[in-house]
Amino acid sequence: MAEPDLLAGYDEETRPIIAGMIAAEQRALAARKAALEDCECREGMFPNPGRRRVLVAAGSAVAAAMLGGAGAAWAQAKAPAGAVLREVPADPTKEQGAPIAEDGGYGSRSQFETATRWRPNIPATTPFSSWTMSPLDQSYGVVTPSGLHFERHHNGIATIDPARHFLFIHGMVERPKKYSMADLKRFPSASRMHFIECAGNTLTEWKQPTLKTVQGTHGLLSTSEWTGVPFATLAREVGLQPGAAWVLAEGSDAAVMTRSIPLDKLLTDGLIAYGQNGEAIRPEQGYPLRLILPGWQGNMHIKWLRRLEVSDKPYMTREETSKYTDLMGNGKARQFTFVMDAKSVITFPSGEMKLPGPGFYEVTGLAWSGHGRVARVEVSTDAGKSWSLAALQEPVQPICTTRFRFPWFWDGQPAVLQSRCVDETGYIQPTLKELVAIRGLAGPFGSIYHFNAIQSWAVAADGSVSNVHA
Amino acid sequence: MAEPDLLAGYDEETRPIIAGMIAAEQRALAARKAALEDCECREGMFPNPGRRRVLVAAGSAVAAAMLGGAGAAWAQAKAPAGAVLREVPADPTKEQGAPIAEDGGYGSRSQFETATRWRPNIPATTPFSSWTMSPLDQSYGVVTPSGLHFERHHNGIATIDPARHFLFIHGMVERPKKYSMADLKRFPSASRMHFIECAGNTLTEWKQPTLKTVQGTHGLLSTSEWTGVPFATLAREVGLQPGAAWVLAEGSDAAVMTRSIPLDKLLTDGLIAYGQNGEAIRPEQGYPLRLILPGWQGNMHIKWLRRLEVSDKPYMTREETSKYTDLMGNGKARQFTFVMDAKSVITFPSGEMKLPGPGFYEVTGLAWSGHGRVARVEVSTDAGKSWSLAALQEPVQPICTTRFRFPWFWDGQPAVLQSRCVDETGYIQPTLKELVAIRGLAGPFGSIYHFNAIQSWAVAADGSVSNVHA
Repeated sequence: MAEPDLLAGYDEETRPIIAGMIAAEQRALAARKAALEDCECREGMFPNPGRRRVLVAAGSAVAAAMLGGAGAAWAQAKAPAGAVLREVPADPTKEQGAPIAEDGGYGSRSQFETATRWRPNIPATTPFSSWTMSPLDQSYGVVTPSGLHFERHHNGIATIDPARHFLFIHGMVERPKKYSMADLKRFPSASRMHFIECAGNTLTEWKQPTLKTVQGTHGLLSTSEWTGVPFATLAREVGLQPGAAWVLAEGSDAAVMTRSIPLDKLLTDGLIAYGQNGEAIRPEQGYPLRLILPGWQGNMHIKWLRRLEVSDKPYMTREETSKYTDLMGNGKARQFTFVMDAKSVITFPSGEMKLPGPGFYEVTGLAWSGHGRVARVEVSTDAGKSWSLAALQEPVQPICTTRFRFPWFWDGQPAVLQSRCVDETGYIQPTLKELVAIRGLAGPFGSIYHFNAIQSWAVAADGSVSNVHA
Repeated sequence: MAEPDLLAGYDEETRPIIAGMIAAEQRALAARKAALEDCECREGMFPNPGRRRVLVAAGSAVAAAMLGGAGAAWAQAKAPAGAVLREVPADPTKEQGAPIAEDGGYGSRSQFETATRWRPNIPATTPFSSWTMSPLDQSYGVVTPSGLHFERHHNGIATIDPARHFLFIHGMVERPKKYSMADLKRFPSASRMHFIECAGNTLTEWKQPTLKTVQGTHGLLSTSEWTGVPFATLAREVGLQPGAAWVLAEGSDAAVMTRSIPLDKLLTDGLIAYGQNGEAIRPEQGYPLRLILPGWQGNMHIKWLRRLEVSDKPYMTREETSKYTDLMGNGKARQFTFVMDAKSVITFPSGEMKLPGPGFYEVTGLAWSGHGRVARVEVSTDAGKSWSLAALQEPVQPICTTRFRFPWFWDGQPAVLQSRCVDETGYIQPTLKELVAIRGLAGPFGSIYHFNAIQSWAVAADGSVSNVHA
């Protein structure tokens, strides 16, 4: 069977972008597979380089080689940045383990764990304006490790000294204020677990089943426990003037990212966050301060936040006029489509995995909705002809990814796996056909943002899993 | 006022151990304070070296100095291991930020964040048999960053290749089995957020208010989202024989840690865990496999798990006879005191912090119970004369730390802050007096394990906070 032309249906300007993303994913896949080739014991269905073996020989030969020979060079090249490579004893009960760090330290991953995000290097991007995708295929539970949280930067990652960072609140307020980080930490705080999804997540999938892995199709999604000060608290401090209705949020990165945000949303659940997963926010996530707008486009969660200007109207910034609008089938565009609708994706099995044979598998994935809690997730193994309820990981939290699990006995016949999220408002995640019927395909990629159609993974008779439109 | 003799009441063998722990905490404190001295803008009440400033001069001078001069050497010494030090522009909107990692990478902390665990270096320990304490004073929310999870090792940290790691289940079972990591990952999995607390947490506080910080008094406590296979599932696979009642769990570290566990507990909620906070378990937490026994002594959560042997009686291992028993006031000892009772501690303000002056503060801390959910937390600001309800971070999860928050307007007068946890069984966290009345002080430290009395922090008129018995 001939390979389908994945670039069909794209215009000349868009083709190199799509081709670049495909190539970037292929490079990331090749790196993973190279790591797997060094494994004695492949897990097969998990494309996880964590299974690698440096050498086939066991015992002290391994240890010696890891420290000196070709194996050492290889391991050094593959190991996570900053990882301390240690000898692997044949029997760890017979050799004393590694000493505990003298200062107690800050731990890192096992040298056998090498999952990374990947960054597309394509015509439309630079190392300063690009994104990285989270390896959802290798995720467990709901929390995203902070080191694997997806990124989208518009002019590099700002380096900010928190002692010199301030948040200004001004405009239509009674008492304009300047807050240091210490000032902000004096206020009552809140911690909530929320997902952030880039509005552009899955944008390659409108016209064709384009990227091969769930990291490529859905990796602009991550979940953290965020801690900070509710905007509503600060609003009482500064005093809102009559007529106040919008707020401009501004980042202190070199892109000076700005977005207009309805005041109502900020007052409802906007969080001025300084904490992520129990420690300070990571640099790539806006250290030392980020605006969290639960369930809204990732782009609006302004990173390196330095300014909130209250107004009676939106500011019509670049990122809400030339970008982050939704072209419809009739050639007009929707503006201010803030909320990320209900969506789900199966993370296991997913594209480029290979099931070792018929038998039991636990199908698992993530579901989420910007409108509140996930009410239920249904799974189909026959391309949507029939659906069954999946089990949801408790507690199901509002505006948070929910891990679902579904027991499946694979009979070895070709199958198409799908998941469908229904949120607490009753909204049902659409099929691709339903989504396209409303949104059209008039843009270069389709309709670009807010793609939330049901994802299909085909399982072939040989167990290989691939991205399909079904 | 003379310094109290913190070693009074300890025997000659115990004094150097207590003194060593005090000295270890002092060294950690001194390191923090040295970092703070380099700050232009101290936050005062937060003993957080993250606030440090390398140089007072601003702008390009800072940048140049950070790359070249004495500042660079200083910063290199203080920065987290593996951190890439970047120039700090005077105005980050005017200079392009850092490039995104070419391979997408695995992120690390800001160079301004330097919280670490600390390890006591005392007569009773070696670099291979010791523990590290989590910096609870700098924690947010409920999740512990995996890099700051407390540790307790008995013979070093095992280095294990997951491709060569197996779990054996044998003894009183119908079908003994050997599972590879890949085998285990085929089973239905579960993810749950649970705390782990070392049975020895707070053991310095029976006789005297000994250590100065909450990291020292309560830092053998951490919380993660754990993912793995319920033991009950594996039990159905291997088939339990009539009379099976206990299970020996064995680790593959050089201590070959073993504990006897009642079968009922394992069947109720025991988890054979390979995931922690969304990725593989960290090496210090038992990579690639750890037994999670929700709410029970940390020591029983066997790390580097390799064997489960089913029996009709306990095995009377070293760690349940010579250690991890509770000496009572009458000279007899309780054995098999598995469950960690309800407990809580205020993390802000806590020992060695200094409040900058009278005014509003949000008192916050953690509460937990090995018996289930936290039902309520009460806070006292007058040494227990009166109590008020604290707000609990939602969702309150079973056998998980719960963050509590309490608004407090400090009038500048001396105060004693306390928190008290009540769990869903109705159990009320005891006062020190109540605890000692039952448990006695007959052991070298008091009664050593399972100290769960109410912690008191005294706030002096000058705002300084210290550990007291009140």
